[in-house]
Amino acid sequence: MSQTKVNKAVLAYSGGLDTSIILKWLQDTYDCEVVTFTADLGQGDEVEDARSKAIAGGVESIYIEDLREEFVRDYVFPMFRANAIYEGEYLLGTSIARPLISKRMIEIANAEGADAVSHGATGKGNDQVRFEFGFYALKPDVKVIAPWREWDLVSREDMLNFAEKHDIPVERKREGSKSPYSMDANLLHISYEGYDLEDPWCEPSEEMWRWSVSPESAPDSPEYIELTYQAGDIIAINGEAMTPAQVLTELNRLGGKHGIGRIDIVENRFVGMKSRGCYETPGGTIMLKAHRAIESLTLDREAAHLKDELMPRYAKMVYNGFWFAPERVMLQAAIDASQVNVNGDVRLKLYKGNVDVVGRRSEQSMFDERLCTFEDDEGAYDQKDAGGFIKLNALRLRMAKLAGK
Amino acid sequence: MSQTKVNKAVLAYSGGLDTSIILKWLQDTYDCEVVTFTADLGQGDEVEDARSKAIAGGVESIYIEDLREEFVRDYVFPMFRANAIYEGEYLLGTSIARPLISKRMIEIANAEGADAVSHGATGKGNDQVRFEFGFYALKPDVKVIAPWREWDLVSREDMLNFAEKHDIPVERKREGSKSPYSMDANLLHISYEGYDLEDPWCEPSEEMWRWSVSPESAPDSPEYIELTYQAGDIIAINGEAMTPAQVLTELNRLGGKHGIGRIDIVENRFVGMKSRGCYETPGGTIMLKAHRAIESLTLDREAAHLKDELMPRYAKMVYNGFWFAPERVMLQAAIDASQVNVNGDVRLKLYKGNVDVVGRRSEQSMFDERLCTFEDDEGAYDQKDAGGFIKLNALRLRMAKLAGK
Amino acid sequence: MSQTKVNKAVLAYSGGLDTSIILKWLQDTYDCEVVTFTADLGQGDEVEDARSKAIAGGVESIYIEDLREEFVRDYVFPMFRANAIYEGEYLLGTSIARPLISKRMIEIANAEGADAVSHGATGKGNDQVRFEFGFYALKPDVKVIAPWREWDLVSREDMLNFAEKHDIPVERKREGSKSPYSMDANLLHISYEGYDLEDPWCEPSEEMWRWSVSPESAPDSPEYIELTYQAGDIIAINGEAMTPAQVLTELNRLGGKHGIGRIDIVENRFVGMKSRGCYETPGGTIMLKAHRAIESLTLDREAAHLKDELMPRYAKMVYNGFWFAPERVMLQAAIDASQVNVNGDVRLKLYKGNVDVVGRRSEQSMFDERLCTFEDDEGAYDQKDAGGFIKLNALRLRMAKLAGK
Amino acid sequence: MSQTKVNKAVLAYSGGLDTSIILKWLQDTYDCEVVTFTADLGQGDEVEDARSKAIAGGVESIYIEDLREEFVRDYVFPMFRANAIYEGEYLLGTSIARPLISKRMIEIANAEGADAVSHGATGKGNDQVRFEFGFYALKPDVKVIAPWREWDLVSREDMLNFAEKHDIPVERKREGSKSPYSMDANLLHISYEGYDLEDPWCEPSEEMWRWSVSPESAPDSPEYIELTYQAGDIIAINGEAMTPAQVLTELNRLGGKHGIGRIDIVENRFVGMKSRGCYETPGGTIMLKAHRAIESLTLDREAAHLKDELMPRYAKMVYNGFWFAPERVMLQAAIDASQVNVNGDVRLKLYKGNVDVVGRRSEQSMFDERLCTFEDDEGAYDQKDAGGFIKLNALRLRMAKLAGK
Repeated sequence: MSQTKVNKAVLAYSGGLDTSIILKWLQDTYDCEVVTFTADLGQGDEVEDARSKAIAGGVESIYIEDLREEFVRDYVFPMFRANAIYEGEYLLGTSIARPLISKRMIEIANAEGADAVSHGATGKGNDQVRFEFGFYALKPDVKVIAPWREWDLVSREDMLNFAEKHDIPVERKREGSKSPYSMDANLLHISYEGYDLEDPWCEPSEEMWRWSVSPESAPDSPEYIELTYQAGDIIAINGEAMTPAQVLTELNRLGGKHGIGRIDIVENRFVGMKSRGCYETPGGTIMLKAHRAIESLTLDREAAHLKDELMPRYAKMVYNGFWFAPERVMLQAAIDASQVNVNGDVRLKLYKGNVDVVGRRSEQSMFDERLCTFEDDEGAYDQKDAGGFIKLNALRLRMAKLAGK
Repeated sequence: MSQTKVNKAVLAYSGGLDTSIILKWLQDTYDCEVVTFTADLGQGDEVEDARSKAIAGGVESIYIEDLREEFVRDYVFPMFRANAIYEGEYLLGTSIARPLISKRMIEIANAEGADAVSHGATGKGNDQVRFEFGFYALKPDVKVIAPWREWDLVSREDMLNFAEKHDIPVERKREGSKSPYSMDANLLHISYEGYDLEDPWCEPSEEMWRWSVSPESAPDSPEYIELTYQAGDIIAINGEAMTPAQVLTELNRLGGKHGIGRIDIVENRFVGMKSRGCYETPGGTIMLKAHRAIESLTLDREAAHLKDELMPRYAKMVYNGFWFAPERVMLQAAIDASQVNVNGDVRLKLYKGNVDVVGRRSEQSMFDERLCTFEDDEGAYDQKDAGGFIKLNALRLRMAKLAGK
Repeated sequence: MSQTKVNKAVLAYSGGLDTSIILKWLQDTYDCEVVTFTADLGQGDEVEDARSKAIAGGVESIYIEDLREEFVRDYVFPMFRANAIYEGEYLLGTSIARPLISKRMIEIANAEGADAVSHGATGKGNDQVRFEFGFYALKPDVKVIAPWREWDLVSREDMLNFAEKHDIPVERKREGSKSPYSMDANLLHISYEGYDLEDPWCEPSEEMWRWSVSPESAPDSPEYIELTYQAGDIIAINGEAMTPAQVLTELNRLGGKHGIGRIDIVENRFVGMKSRGCYETPGGTIMLKAHRAIESLTLDREAAHLKDELMPRYAKMVYNGFWFAPERVMLQAAIDASQVNVNGDVRLKLYKGNVDVVGRRSEQSMFDERLCTFEDDEGAYDQKDAGGFIKLNALRLRMAKLAGK
Repeated sequence: MSQTKVNKAVLAYSGGLDTSIILKWLQDTYDCEVVTFTADLGQGDEVEDARSKAIAGGVESIYIEDLREEFVRDYVFPMFRANAIYEGEYLLGTSIARPLISKRMIEIANAEGADAVSHGATGKGNDQVRFEFGFYALKPDVKVIAPWREWDLVSREDMLNFAEKHDIPVERKREGSKSPYSMDANLLHISYEGYDLEDPWCEPSEEMWRWSVSPESAPDSPEYIELTYQAGDIIAINGEAMTPAQVLTELNRLGGKHGIGRIDIVENRFVGMKSRGCYETPGGTIMLKAHRAIESLTLDREAAHLKDELMPRYAKMVYNGFWFAPERVMLQAAIDASQVNVNGDVRLKLYKGNVDVVGRRSEQSMFDERLCTFEDDEGAYDQKDAGGFIKLNALRLRMAKLAGK
């Protein structure tokens, strides 16, 4: 066990049982002051509950913050400009929240003169990596304490015994009725892991899902919506201007209502193993589809293709926790440079799990119907040009065949 | 107008009005023998009808061939091993059929001693490019005749006048009732372009679609199916062994029944302009989803990521007509090398436009629930290893921050 | 022959025989006013000579400009930030000059109210493409006149006859003594094509080269120089601050003196064929080596690798003439974002064709000798961390082997 | 310290002091039988010396093998088909030897019924990673013992004390006269690290280099050589057929004689830090240059560009130790698919550190001088085709400008 000397540690604190145990464990093990940090990222829990628990735990410096606008504006929206999707399916809901938490914790550590930070992520998952890359990238000399990799509490029973021994209140009722899944939520998504999902052949039960109705239970009539884009970001829904967090909140409501955004995948973790996860990302699923649609009208072909080719790397960087790494900053610069003219409206039809693009328009549209019409194009395009175009592009193919003989 | 001397030309001939006019125009303009080639790629038309029309047109060498198995086995399936999708949406249904047609035409040209080939694709589209790249790649000295880039027939009226003047039968009834859209079909998809789609803000009418019911009209109960993979290709549906073309035919039936596989996009053509297209790809939509699912269990992480990063380039090569180009062959070699262990079963739920993966299993599965379980893993994974992993990965981030100060 | 109506055309005019013929041909063929544009990009010719010839040719608006600083600052330096090299060998000396010429010509066309632009590049080369992509990207409705693709002058004799007929002075002496090679030069390089180079097995004769001595003739003693970088660009040589054009001029002198920067390659043109070219790029060869060296100390590993992976695409964009295309702008944004801390000094040894890096230092250095020393590192690095690092990175390899059995 | 139970371990054994200490330490610490493996990879030491030392150390199973041909044929040559170069400079001489050693050690472990393998690489370098990835990829359940990460010998003095205490002979003379640098050698290269190289501003002294003369000391006359390629590999030098190891041995001789192949770089290690290294790769430097030259004539443009774009990733995989990983196998499949027609001859001039290509020829050449000649091309290329080619390629640039207004 690491016995580094620690003076003051900032702890990512939810107020739940696990982080309450960590709070006590840190105080005891490191004999240090602990500062708690609790953020509202739209996870749907009442963050103010954390205050009384932290006070009860003897914490003097308590930070409780609503970061929803910053989260969507500076993390979710930039990521959606990239059309980021990990392994073809996952919209990176958990991954994108970690850098912001790390950043605020380091800012607090600097303000408080703390020399350590701590979090409640386990040693098997991606989140420990994401948190700690953020910590180290922003404060290279910080001490990182990851209790799950250090302590000897390895079962739920160990945890409950520790809690009982140290008078940490266990909400038995909540413990009893709570989901058997390991869950994480923020404004972008809610995730489920563990329990019966550990068998990838097992279909998750309908009771597991929390944010969306099933397509079967969704309304029998479609709903049409219109999204307005400016420089690649949504600024209005159905003509009503909204802040980033308002946009995502409203799209979550709409998507959840129509059974949109559930996925069930086996993914590859950065720490090496495959894991099964289910996710609900109602608003994000709508945003991805709509962003591609507005880009289809306003983005140059090769810019779009370059984005498509860079995207898997970008998504991997975000998934693996490299948000603050120079290579992610480089790709973001390239992506953002492409979005200047990504302005206009997208019309969508939402119906029982489906998000269908049914219209897109823009004052910066590069679509010119004269160029592709099957009718008379009034000279906009000279079909004879295609002959030369084909001949020169084919020249190397012809030479290759001749040479190969 | 090109007045190259031509002795004998092989024409891609559907038997419809356009290619019948081309047949006559070639005979007249080039004073050459024309050999017709008509392929059944699953487009749903009766190819044998082309025989009587070709005979009536004075053709002596008539080739009519059922290429459905070759099409799916050697073109569609290899492409789906790559999870190919163009610009995030398009499953390349038209693109993938062109190389096979080119290949057979060149084989026929060689067998018949023909020095020229001809097709009915216009000078504005991608198909001329795809056909001609195939021609040149396989027979570098072939003469290519693209009537739409040469003649002076620029309107439907010109065409009808030409037909009337040369006694080419026009099926008035069919002309009258036919779809106002420009369409193309094969076993992988059917496409729609033109007419009211030329306004990208206009939602296509329900009457346009031909291969699938709308999600609204699809059955109210989901249907579960099981697909069996071997080396990345589907070899059985619900336990029943099938040939490649049988697989795709059956998946089209299932997808079409459940309203699956419609898309409506604005895409970037290789010849430079943006164009609006609608596509139905019922079976292909199911295949893409299922293939990713079986790969999620059986493909190594970095192999999967490499495939994801190469995919947009592969898709672009197919879209742009470079099937026979060395770079496509290179990528195919890489992709095929990854599929050796992509074996197993995928269970899917089909419901009103949705294809949901609900299970995957494989004897070559790399998923090991001990590695990610939240329960006791019996030492399969040492959480302390993660500490070193993070420390070394973060080293450069720390150095960067220190250096940047 | 295109007989588009043209009012006024801006011509890229060197004052040499070819562009003098084009000047006359444009005036006659299009019956239009011609504005001449002559730029000093460091090619080594006296650009003012062009004035009297243009006057003699009846030109009223004559633009003669020294663009050397703009050329190096806004084109050469940004490209060298990318470590751009085409097909492993070519430093893009010709390619990078074309966009600047196009840009100034369009600016002049706009200022002069000209509706057309014209250039003297042939229909077989890359330069026509580079010029015209610049024209179209900056003024989409401009008329482009490429005489070599239009006129019927196909041999040197045709040209001389045309000149004689129209009293265009042919400098017989210069014609007689001039190099048998087709050459192009600017501050970055001089190129040679044609003549005996058309046989790729033929070694070029020593007389061909103009800017550098041979390694055999170079001084027998090495010379050491020191370059100072700021944000990826050289700002001083041997401690003396210099402007961009001064830097390149001085490095050309040093490189040329030491026989540095000759290459002899077969390259792939964008218009489809392979071509043989020889190039002298003395300063550029030094800059590429030195820039990599300063980056080796100051650039993060993954940023450097991302740059390396993007570089071939960037180089291809520049080679193919897509400088003003959105995808080049995107990549430049990514590259420039990486250069913030690329500051410091590089020490080089120049000797008979060799450029050897012998030292590099920086206040933003990320090199820390404690981390890699074979001596005691005082705890800077815990070797045990490597165990976990390896174990987790190898996890997927082990799973792959187990699954493949 | 890991106290895993070990029965029998295979040790990578050079016979030098360090691995002799490890041999004893393994026997004592793990109380296990140790099998020694010593390979001749062309490092220039007499491998048979290892036998008597192993016998003296009590080893019963001693493997001493000449792997030079396998090394060049199955590792070096495939890597050079890729034109692999790490971070623009490093030819991967150490990296490429590790997988072969790992493979043979695992084969021996399987044959001997050994459950463990061990090596003498430190915990700071890349070699531990490369060895262990090979071990785990080929035998997932093997126990890996890395003494440098386990034991408490941290200085040279500790080592000498351990040797003295256990009667391990220390060749004082050799110790005394030996290079102050940490070195590694095989048929591809020799490397130098540590000592005064730990200051990246310090120029290495001439005495350090072992395999090549300095350019200053090289012959004053150039030497011309001719290499013959078949499917991307060299099969003859100056017309004389040679095996792979013979080819590399002879090119090392030639390169070393002419002062070719020294580099001095700061590189980024996989384990996170930057490190300074100097390398001599005489034969490899010639091979890289020559392979690009034969490819320039025989490889299709887009195949070549795809190779260039994939190369940095391939090089990184080799550098990081992922030779046996699926993604390296995938890229190798793509690369090898491109080399079928890479046949022919390259003529090179070697002179004082310079390798200049002065000729290349091939029966599969795709170079056609008619296509690029400045003289009459007899219709091989129609310059007017370029007009259409440019127009269609520029279409999107024009639309982008129009839309952006």
